[in-house]
Amino acid sequence: MATSPETEHPVKAFGWAAKDTSGILSPFKFSRRATGEHDVQLRILYCGVCHSDLHMAKNELGFTQFPMVPGHEIVGIVTEVGSKVKKFKVGNKVGVGCLVGSCRQCDLCDRDLENYCAKQILTYSMPYYDGTITQGGYSDIMVADEHFVILWPDNFPLDAGAPLLCAGITTYSPLRHFGLDKPGMSVGIVGLGGLGHLAVKFAKAFGCRVTVISTSINKKEEAIGKLGADEFLVSSDPEQMQAAIGTLDGIIDTVSATHSLFMLVSLLKAEGKLILVGLPQSLEIPIFPLLIGRRAIIGSATGGLKETQEMIDFAAKHNILPDVEMIPMDYVNTAMERLLKSDVKYRFVIDIASTLKAE
Amino acid sequence: MATSPETEHPVKAFGWAAKDTSGILSPFKFSRRATGEHDVQLRILYCGVCHSDLHMAKNELGFTQFPMVPGHEIVGIVTEVGSKVKKFKVGNKVGVGCLVGSCRQCDLCDRDLENYCAKQILTYSMPYYDGTITQGGYSDIMVADEHFVILWPDNFPLDAGAPLLCAGITTYSPLRHFGLDKPGMSVGIVGLGGLGHLAVKFAKAFGCRVTVISTSINKKEEAIGKLGADEFLVSSDPEQMQAAIGTLDGIIDTVSATHSLFMLVSLLKAEGKLILVGLPQSLEIPIFPLLIGRRAIIGSATGGLKETQEMIDFAAKHNILPDVEMIPMDYVNTAMERLLKSDVKYRFVIDIASTLKAE
Repeated sequence: MATSPETEHPVKAFGWAAKDTSGILSPFKFSRRATGEHDVQLRILYCGVCHSDLHMAKNELGFTQFPMVPGHEIVGIVTEVGSKVKKFKVGNKVGVGCLVGSCRQCDLCDRDLENYCAKQILTYSMPYYDGTITQGGYSDIMVADEHFVILWPDNFPLDAGAPLLCAGITTYSPLRHFGLDKPGMSVGIVGLGGLGHLAVKFAKAFGCRVTVISTSINKKEEAIGKLGADEFLVSSDPEQMQAAIGTLDGIIDTVSATHSLFMLVSLLKAEGKLILVGLPQSLEIPIFPLLIGRRAIIGSATGGLKETQEMIDFAAKHNILPDVEMIPMDYVNTAMERLLKSDVKYRFVIDIASTLKAE
Repeated sequence: MATSPETEHPVKAFGWAAKDTSGILSPFKFSRRATGEHDVQLRILYCGVCHSDLHMAKNELGFTQFPMVPGHEIVGIVTEVGSKVKKFKVGNKVGVGCLVGSCRQCDLCDRDLENYCAKQILTYSMPYYDGTITQGGYSDIMVADEHFVILWPDNFPLDAGAPLLCAGITTYSPLRHFGLDKPGMSVGIVGLGGLGHLAVKFAKAFGCRVTVISTSINKKEEAIGKLGADEFLVSSDPEQMQAAIGTLDGIIDTVSATHSLFMLVSLLKAEGKLILVGLPQSLEIPIFPLLIGRRAIIGSATGGLKETQEMIDFAAKHNILPDVEMIPMDYVNTAMERLLKSDVKYRFVIDIASTLKAE
């Protein structure tokens, strides 16, 4: 069907793409569809750099379609709307997150859980309805169905706010859904990176008692002093961990490296929940602690569109912003290398508007 | 404190005990406490042989206290009651399951979840309040606090019914608690042994659509023809498994051997639950299927006393009885060997009253 990414659609677009499993990004000319009846076209101003972008650029999940423009923490300004668009006007500040499509008719879509719809279409590297492959936000322009566009609150920063669209909703959703959003709840957060630092901020805003669990004592000052956590546990310290057994209602585990869950599950109260939001290659189930407390290990992936809008509005109201390091487009390969080493506090955001130059 | 098991209490008792990690059982003289104010004394008639008895006899969980009399599927006739006992009279048919004590004052005990109380006292091989070690039902006599004694329904067989006290409640409890107890629910049962065959019977009695998942096609006829399951899946057949992806609301996994959970979790609908009730040595988490459907892996261990009474009453009303092979006491070591090979349909029950002879 398609001739080439550059000519398959009428609207010229430009971005940076991974072209093979090296994962190295380089300039890339492609195209976007004309704005359909229900579509919103936006000029991209900023885009967050998510760990998934790195996994996908190297085809570590096995379904990358090269060349691939990553990026699903996209914010910008509406430049055109389709004739049937209701929620948006030209000039609106908007965001696009991890999804640009879903079946819109299954039970999950009916329940605003498009993120679990079996026919969901990811923002990049998946076939869209017209057969072309979706491309993400490391680019100058974006077109998306208005159902998958988030209205940005007035006076809420677009630049630092961008990572809320994936890292934010990924932690907000399980805290909300599993009832870890009330004063009196004790919540553990494992890993203090892009996801973890937002999990701490949301859990504190909900009034929870927050314990950060980390391999490194070095993060204690940041966790408590800067992010406002109540407790800090070094996971390699058996005495500290032992003393905290059975004290947490839930844990959000953001770690994408292989790690032991035995003590983490043991930290939970009976009926407590360990919620995995990272993508480690392999994890063993701590069967005995699971059984003797009817404890659960649950996966959670981003959130639905209604909940994402709610999260952005909540973040704006409570002034919850990711801590970001703003980078120019041509720094992205270095940023990815640093991301691999967790050498960022806590999220890179690409300044697309000022630094992405069409060649 | 104790002098010897035979003299530490005033009431002479006799049973079969494991004396070392060989797990081999042999005749054993010990004693039971005098019937306290809140205690019920019973003459044991039958006792089921649970997989846990085997694990514990070999100290595979690491906390066995030798010599150990196993058995926590105990039924018999009340022979004496304490002065403050309210629920029982001499001559009542009763049962004792996995627990003989708990703190009775924590939040979990308040919620009738004594089975998750951190201070629960197992029916055998744990220190009781008086410092002596509890001993189980492969014996002639038993004494237990009335709170931990189940009233047996009239006209409900004691012999075949015994395994309900562990195998029964272990499968009934998660089906009930996780809402897998309604017409319209699709429930998978993995493994067709002592636990699995009861899970099928309960789930059918609740009106669920039941799919048995097994490694062996040989069990199909039994599962469907005899136990009344609706569907049968051979777990090693990729086509069958593929066709069933996303169809089950919940799965009760009764298997105690190491096995892959990847396809099992994939069989679940979004937000479906895989409930582990066996004790495999090691299992790997299928992370991706967990995340993309907010699916859960949950442990569940037996049930509380209130729920156990409810289960027995339900079983009596719906005539749900384990399929058992009745054995004499001196066959127990052979039975344990056969149990290891899953060579029993589906539960051994020891005919204590007729075959346990004090030496």
